[in-house]
Amino acid sequence: MKLQLDPDRLFPLDAKGREIARGLYESVADAPIISPHGHVDPGILLRDEPFGDAAELFIRYDHYVTRVLHSVGISMSELGLPSTDHADTPASPRQVWRTFSANWHLYAGTASGYWLQSTFAEQFGLTEQPDAENADRLFDAIQAKLDSPAFLPRALFDQFRIEVLATTDDPLDDLAVHDALAADPSFGGRVVPTFRPDAYLNPLAPGWNERIEALATRNGTSPGSFRGYIDALAGRRRYFIEHGAVSADHGTPQPLAVDLEEAEASRLFEQALAGTLDPEGVRIFGGHMLFQMARMSVEDGLVMTVHPGVFRNHNSETLQRYGADTGHDIPVRTEYVEPLRPLLERFGNAPGFHLVLFTVDETSFSREIAPLAGFYPSVFIGAPWWFLDAPDAVQRFRAASTETAGFYKGSGFIDDTRAFLSIPARHDMSRRLDAAYLARLVGEGRLDLERAEHIIVDLVVTQPKKVFKL
Amino acid sequence: MKLQLDPDRLFPLDAKGREIARGLYESVADAPIISPHGHVDPGILLRDEPFGDAAELFIRYDHYVTRVLHSVGISMSELGLPSTDHADTPASPRQVWRTFSANWHLYAGTASGYWLQSTFAEQFGLTEQPDAENADRLFDAIQAKLDSPAFLPRALFDQFRIEVLATTDDPLDDLAVHDALAADPSFGGRVVPTFRPDAYLNPLAPGWNERIEALATRNGTSPGSFRGYIDALAGRRRYFIEHGAVSADHGTPQPLAVDLEEAEASRLFEQALAGTLDPEGVRIFGGHMLFQMARMSVEDGLVMTVHPGVFRNHNSETLQRYGADTGHDIPVRTEYVEPLRPLLERFGNAPGFHLVLFTVDETSFSREIAPLAGFYPSVFIGAPWWFLDAPDAVQRFRAASTETAGFYKGSGFIDDTRAFLSIPARHDMSRRLDAAYLARLVGEGRLDLERAEHIIVDLVVTQPKKVFKL
Amino acid sequence: MKLQLDPDRLFPLDAKGREIARGLYESVADAPIISPHGHVDPGILLRDEPFGDAAELFIRYDHYVTRVLHSVGISMSELGLPSTDHADTPASPRQVWRTFSANWHLYAGTASGYWLQSTFAEQFGLTEQPDAENADRLFDAIQAKLDSPAFLPRALFDQFRIEVLATTDDPLDDLAVHDALAADPSFGGRVVPTFRPDAYLNPLAPGWNERIEALATRNGTSPGSFRGYIDALAGRRRYFIEHGAVSADHGTPQPLAVDLEEAEASRLFEQALAGTLDPEGVRIFGGHMLFQMARMSVEDGLVMTVHPGVFRNHNSETLQRYGADTGHDIPVRTEYVEPLRPLLERFGNAPGFHLVLFTVDETSFSREIAPLAGFYPSVFIGAPWWFLDAPDAVQRFRAASTETAGFYKGSGFIDDTRAFLSIPARHDMSRRLDAAYLARLVGEGRLDLERAEHIIVDLVVTQPKKVFKL
Repeated sequence: MKLQLDPDRLFPLDAKGREIARGLYESVADAPIISPHGHVDPGILLRDEPFGDAAELFIRYDHYVTRVLHSVGISMSELGLPSTDHADTPASPRQVWRTFSANWHLYAGTASGYWLQSTFAEQFGLTEQPDAENADRLFDAIQAKLDSPAFLPRALFDQFRIEVLATTDDPLDDLAVHDALAADPSFGGRVVPTFRPDAYLNPLAPGWNERIEALATRNGTSPGSFRGYIDALAGRRRYFIEHGAVSADHGTPQPLAVDLEEAEASRLFEQALAGTLDPEGVRIFGGHMLFQMARMSVEDGLVMTVHPGVFRNHNSETLQRYGADTGHDIPVRTEYVEPLRPLLERFGNAPGFHLVLFTVDETSFSREIAPLAGFYPSVFIGAPWWFLDAPDAVQRFRAASTETAGFYKGSGFIDDTRAFLSIPARHDMSRRLDAAYLARLVGEGRLDLERAEHIIVDLVVTQPKKVFKL
Repeated sequence: MKLQLDPDRLFPLDAKGREIARGLYESVADAPIISPHGHVDPGILLRDEPFGDAAELFIRYDHYVTRVLHSVGISMSELGLPSTDHADTPASPRQVWRTFSANWHLYAGTASGYWLQSTFAEQFGLTEQPDAENADRLFDAIQAKLDSPAFLPRALFDQFRIEVLATTDDPLDDLAVHDALAADPSFGGRVVPTFRPDAYLNPLAPGWNERIEALATRNGTSPGSFRGYIDALAGRRRYFIEHGAVSADHGTPQPLAVDLEEAEASRLFEQALAGTLDPEGVRIFGGHMLFQMARMSVEDGLVMTVHPGVFRNHNSETLQRYGADTGHDIPVRTEYVEPLRPLLERFGNAPGFHLVLFTVDETSFSREIAPLAGFYPSVFIGAPWWFLDAPDAVQRFRAASTETAGFYKGSGFIDDTRAFLSIPARHDMSRRLDAAYLARLVGEGRLDLERAEHIIVDLVVTQPKKVFKL
Repeated sequence: MKLQLDPDRLFPLDAKGREIARGLYESVADAPIISPHGHVDPGILLRDEPFGDAAELFIRYDHYVTRVLHSVGISMSELGLPSTDHADTPASPRQVWRTFSANWHLYAGTASGYWLQSTFAEQFGLTEQPDAENADRLFDAIQAKLDSPAFLPRALFDQFRIEVLATTDDPLDDLAVHDALAADPSFGGRVVPTFRPDAYLNPLAPGWNERIEALATRNGTSPGSFRGYIDALAGRRRYFIEHGAVSADHGTPQPLAVDLEEAEASRLFEQALAGTLDPEGVRIFGGHMLFQMARMSVEDGLVMTVHPGVFRNHNSETLQRYGADTGHDIPVRTEYVEPLRPLLERFGNAPGFHLVLFTVDETSFSREIAPLAGFYPSVFIGAPWWFLDAPDAVQRFRAASTETAGFYKGSGFIDDTRAFLSIPARHDMSRRLDAAYLARLVGEGRLDLERAEHIIVDLVVTQPKKVFKL
């Protein structure tokens, strides 16, 4: 089957709407990429070594891709993932690619399928869709590209026109890679770290005690003191800011914020260290730490992003065998209005505070997030995330949030990806969808074309810079 | 930027759908306005004095409008709202209008922006969109209109072709304004009061004890008796009915109904008066009072409307400074099927009982409200309310409810507004959206055009009169 | 009003999309019907006697139809349903049809209206829409058809091209009707039973104790033993499998699964028999029995379908008078991710296990069901069910689930009907909607036409056979 990209893809079916969309899209198609939240390893840019192979690049590390194949009964080891069970040998890259190719039809209609197809066509010049028959040929064609200088990470960074790329980093990371990149005169890009303290805030995270101790050691304080713990976190945030960070990211089970007296917080912290905190205590302590993170953001200016509502590692068997982030995270119902209230009561109107609320429960867009963003100066609506970063879901998001909050309380597009090669396809998809949505409003007489022409530039360029203080 | 209204606005993009929609719309475009639920002050019609200025008319009293400007960091005092903090001086009307005009782009794509634009063009003949540069000029142009006799409230009432306008009133209101209007031979309109007893049913409402006492005094009974309290409420309902009321409206946190023995209800009432009722008791007592209101509606025939699921005054700081209804009310998840069951078990099939269920949680349309309305003769689906009274949300409502409940279990359109000038724009928007939805069904071969021509008249004229017993 | 079917009904308005949809639809329009879940009485095929009359056929036994008329105040006895109140005489079939015809406009825009209209036109050749004036004439025209040989059940079975029809059966049913049908050389169809044990798993079901006793008697074990109870259920499942069953269906209030030690399960079972189990115990026991059913499905291979989230018999008055399944079942919020986890932890990756999750809470498609099906090999997404089996709801389902789970984790269409005559209309509607959805993706450049041509055949033919092991 041929692989061809429709130049008008994602635009409205209707000819009039399509023409408007095309015009709007063209005005931003070549705009630089601003990527204020994602999971690319900065080391690939520092080392600037060739990518390995098609399996490594497109399948093994992308849990959007692995889960689809797992869902039809293909094991993770057949996809190249190492297993804790030694009898369960990972397949070779070529074999992984063959399995993927033979099952390429499973991706029809999915967001991953769309990105992969775009990348295959635009980056690799493939003209056939993968299948069992052409698998080896395409694997080799991709390998030939990957071995060429144009496919070195830095060359792609330039080719993609990336203006800013944010990574996601451990609070105790020394950010040496970021420093080295910044200091490298041969690399002109801007790669900034992001402070991601989840594992330091949740007493149930594996290795929490060790992490708290390491944090205290770095800070030169006693590991048993809540005040020292708070100071150490604030210190690491300052370190990140000094090394270019603009935001702090928080993946909490639910967006709960709890305002506690320090004595009570200390008591919970000590119980957590002692391993005697009960589940409700863990919940409250986690909620207080989200509150503390907001307080620090008000003080130090880091943009606060919250990614809640995911049941991580839903399947213990695959977690134990293949590890986290391999496809077994599932959304759950998420509420914001009541759980976040203590935080918004205290900081919702604080000047300069930016709080970006993401969701994987799309019912919250019209009911909770857009109304909150439509009142609180601090609140911004996170772009559709993860399962919702897909064409129809994005249109639902726009339709659900714009009528309440307009166009100027969104975060701008966030690619949230560890798949470096997919970055242009993801941003391009977002731009096309923005153009399509605006074109519909123009066509329906709800928006002037001239206004829409300003808005699309604001959505793609101005808004992410403003929200992320870039 | 020019301000022009597309004559085909809100119709489908597709040419065929658009043509059908246009025909359907034209048949109701000039139908009289029936407004069975809203918040216009009847005094403006009694006094018939000129409206003040553009800021008073469009911004200061419209919390749909103020919240958008607040959400980008503009304080309520900059929007002309008086503050309890004397240092926080409200801006002058002209300055408020300038601030609004400079930020007019924030309303692009919102329902408020749509209504304002329609009103500017249709009522005021403006041909430019507000901006920082033309703000003073437009302010003066609007003022010139407001000072003309054609813009007196009664002249507008006639011009808008309002057949019935319902207001929202306190149970102890003597309705003298309504009486005077009805007795005025120079005013031919029908303006009816609505019984809104929330502040008398919720023991946590500020001033509840005083209100209960005033109620008892008016009724000539002891303020400490639950029986007297119930009698007094029934008495005030009768008074409202005698003065033209057709409905009673209830804004509860959740649509909870609780059937209690009188002894238990009395006990809770006495605890409430004594200030010793705990939160669960408050919840139960409120649920019982919703049940009592249904019982009274079955007996006295007042249509019962319920507007639940709003977290009122989410932000204490702005509440304390600027008061209620200034933009800080946020929807929460709402459930109907289980909480309302005691009421429906008892009264769901009662002849003549009309219960109109509104929501700001749109997930309940397909899951709960349409199925309930599709079985219980008493239940009607409230038109999309507040945040959901917007073009895309209305289409989602129609698509979510019609397939289950058809076209004849809806409330008809409710403008729910305190912005008198926006009434024609709101009803016109609703009519266009009905036409667009019907046109789509006709175009998709799901509905005969001849049937659609009947339905649109029923939706606009027949259904609201039937549901509200007008 | 004329009754005419648009040959392009349900296709996109846009001419280009419509043309693509038409082509895709034509390739499956005449495909055989696979109906792996429904409620047709197999006795009608065994006896092969003429259907009674229009009222019996279209109204009285179809709770989708009765509820709509009840919702405007028409009593169930006016619709021909026998009442426990002897004064409440059921109307005659002709009178029922007159009532229905006079209210036919109530079905405009509903799924039932669509199916009825299709059936009237395609099966009965009616050319007028029912109304008060033509009611008697249409009743007689329908009767004339029903009395003809072409309208005998088996003739219709052939005419409808039904390849497989699954019924829903009580675990203690001896399946003699199915056996007789299979043994009848003059009937070539495949009619398979489905194991539906709800009334044996829920201690609150009326007659539970008697049923448990009958089960034990059949099994030759003591009625008081949990082990015997489990064995008896497994035995009846084997019996069903031996008589052609491919699936077991479960209608639970919520999709809760609980993994208990046998001792604890026995204890709850004994309390249930003794009538001393508290509501929480009932919930836990029911959850454990769902877990046991999954275990048995893993062992015996019956496909496990779950239909949760319905508040059955919401109105006691109509239940007491007219019985269950007459229109008073209402959806409630449903969650899957956390409640089902124990089951998925244990069996989610079990080879050959098929678990089909249905919902009447459409918010769960994008948030929970598609993500679960997009990871677990066992999980399939049930087709839109009941209130959601309607054109717009089906498009929302496709849009909500495909981007996450693709096209190959759906159950295929399930008609779930007791209305035998409506089966072709329902399957045809589903095929048209699939064509329309695929056409939109093709038109938007998100799917190749050639791929779409494969997918529509897979959706209609391949997928239901694969998922239901047919």
